[in-house]
Amino acid sequence: MNNFEFCNPTRIIFGKDSQKKVGEYVKKYSSNILFHYGKESIKKSGLYDEVISSLKEAGVAYTELGGVQPNPRISLVRKGVKICKEKKIDFILAAGGGSVIDSAKAIALGIKYDGDVWDFFTMKALPKQTASTAVILTIPAAGSESSPNTVISNEEESMKLAVKYPPLRPVFSILNPAFCFSLPKEQLGYGVCDMMAHIFERYFTQTKYTELSDKLCEGTLKTIIDNAYKLLNNFNDYNAWAEIMLAGNVAHNGFLGMGRQEDWASHGIEHAISAVYDIPHGAGLSIVFPAWMKYVYKYNIPLFTQFAVNVWGVSGGISNSDEIALKGIEETEKFFKRLNLPVRLGDLNIKEKDIEIMAKKATAFGTLGSFKELNTEDVKAIYKLAL
Amino acid sequence: MNNFEFCNPTRIIFGKDSQKKVGEYVKKYSSNILFHYGKESIKKSGLYDEVISSLKEAGVAYTELGGVQPNPRISLVRKGVKICKEKKIDFILAAGGGSVIDSAKAIALGIKYDGDVWDFFTMKALPKQTASTAVILTIPAAGSESSPNTVISNEEESMKLAVKYPPLRPVFSILNPAFCFSLPKEQLGYGVCDMMAHIFERYFTQTKYTELSDKLCEGTLKTIIDNAYKLLNNFNDYNAWAEIMLAGNVAHNGFLGMGRQEDWASHGIEHAISAVYDIPHGAGLSIVFPAWMKYVYKYNIPLFTQFAVNVWGVSGGISNSDEIALKGIEETEKFFKRLNLPVRLGDLNIKEKDIEIMAKKATAFGTLGSFKELNTEDVKAIYKLAL
Repeated sequence: MNNFEFCNPTRIIFGKDSQKKVGEYVKKYSSNILFHYGKESIKKSGLYDEVISSLKEAGVAYTELGGVQPNPRISLVRKGVKICKEKKIDFILAAGGGSVIDSAKAIALGIKYDGDVWDFFTMKALPKQTASTAVILTIPAAGSESSPNTVISNEEESMKLAVKYPPLRPVFSILNPAFCFSLPKEQLGYGVCDMMAHIFERYFTQTKYTELSDKLCEGTLKTIIDNAYKLLNNFNDYNAWAEIMLAGNVAHNGFLGMGRQEDWASHGIEHAISAVYDIPHGAGLSIVFPAWMKYVYKYNIPLFTQFAVNVWGVSGGISNSDEIALKGIEETEKFFKRLNLPVRLGDLNIKEKDIEIMAKKATAFGTLGSFKELNTEDVKAIYKLAL
Repeated sequence: MNNFEFCNPTRIIFGKDSQKKVGEYVKKYSSNILFHYGKESIKKSGLYDEVISSLKEAGVAYTELGGVQPNPRISLVRKGVKICKEKKIDFILAAGGGSVIDSAKAIALGIKYDGDVWDFFTMKALPKQTASTAVILTIPAAGSESSPNTVISNEEESMKLAVKYPPLRPVFSILNPAFCFSLPKEQLGYGVCDMMAHIFERYFTQTKYTELSDKLCEGTLKTIIDNAYKLLNNFNDYNAWAEIMLAGNVAHNGFLGMGRQEDWASHGIEHAISAVYDIPHGAGLSIVFPAWMKYVYKYNIPLFTQFAVNVWGVSGGISNSDEIALKGIEETEKFFKRLNLPVRLGDLNIKEKDIEIMAKKATAFGTLGSFKELNTEDVKAIYKLAL
């Protein structure tokens, strides 16, 4: 186990009707906020009205900024920063999924900075302070509701880049599994793949002596798999969504990475795809991960056999067996297919000719990952395994 | 899964040499602290000198108060409160195990209160604020290093009572597994039993649909068991202590109880023993838990069979089988014995004639637990099962 520090102060407010007191919670931090959201879904579901009425009741003044798109854009972030600076707003309430939350975090960073907020993503500047955010989560997937990360797309430069800064963790996040009933059906697969990917990035490590976090990762993965199957049968199963929503939070709040060297190569490889093709993050990950696994498993076969046995129930002991390791990867791919997720670049019409440019984008800031350090040629090979 | 709120802001600073920067960390919060510890062990191990030198280097003024005993006493807490009030100290650094940390938390509560701090334990007063604490943990067991609880004994009244107040969570806790090498050998069993008990109190619930937290509890229990065996073979195994120390923290930081109704009857039953007989908490728990399990398992046999199968590897599926449930309890008891822990009241010379008075003490504030609500007669029956 490596030395580490871990601190996750985000308050999780979980369960039925947990959104009803949002105004009261916000009021502890601010009386003048930006209410940030995506498109029409929160209006259709009634959440919008509930939030407005709770904010009014608590005496919180709010300015609205909707319109966040999947793969949230720097242009809207800049607009949010401008509004907040003009109106002296220092608190952003995000209602939505990872895109809305990431957009809110980027706005929060920009508020406390005189330059262009994109500077933090290109590492021209390092964050020194941030305004606060809070979340009402409607899509379990990205784990952004208690993570210190934000990922933003720059549409002019076809770049999708991340900032990690611990004070970006929201002060509170409201998680009501009942919000999931109205999600588009395909979101189940995207969300499940996204949260599994967050665990994979931590689980597949070369760090030794990680028994507790191995077991916590495996237990969380198994819970996600079990409950995804339940939701395929009954999309309105509150208890199954509760497991998935909580698992998605645990998957990315940093807890499962304690004492482990994390990898994150696959996220870099996926971001390069979705910077070129505007595809859902979860769909990119279901293509990249099996290919990444096939390319790197031989660098730690015991861990890949442990994964096959403990997560997928592949029979056989944990050994140095290629066969068992490969079965675990096969099961992962089969599960993604069962969730109607793409597992090949061609499934999303991503062209072989773009592999070169995507591999260059993915490695624009250097090699990727640590499980096996990947250069441009390695990334190309992984894209080719996904053809 | 029940609705819940969870927030654990304690920063965990984990690993080799992690104590070396304690002065720097303290300085972020205070320049005038109480340095609180137990007896001679931190002087023998060299930790005392390291702390003093780090505090001096960081320019932190300190007043020392040593002498905390196991089952920490209200008399020393009162002395600490007096010192802190006189010297206008509002930060306590605890170096030790659960007793030292609980004593520090009680002092922190007392500093911000005009009356006698014992009032909070008898519920004559409710905490409204507290000074801050931080921890250098030397004994993995109680989990107090990031819990919101303190348990204090009143020697005059033969009472041992707890306060739970979220702001009592320490601001940071330093966990260096290498400190464990110098523990007395019997502490392995006491500590392991204490942390397993914290999980049992959460795991054994009547709440339904708790798959994720079930699996996290089971994974943490298995890690503790595996690594306890390793330490029986080699007491200086850093990696095994790292797993135990992290597991002990996870066991009691509240995370494993998310969405579950917790029980805590067994802790009440044990506290009544150690209020009458001055025994180690872990040794009391290893007597009480098997007896409690035998008394209550029939109220949720599927969960007790799940425990037997998933934690102890008892063969057979999760079913409504008395036999498998009882095997799990038997394995628990065998494991405690393997760790040289007492499993019967007689092992510690606790007399049958005291059952009456202990049962009354245990239920002095009402019934105990929720898995099966226990009145005085139930508690007596449990003590009798432990004869």
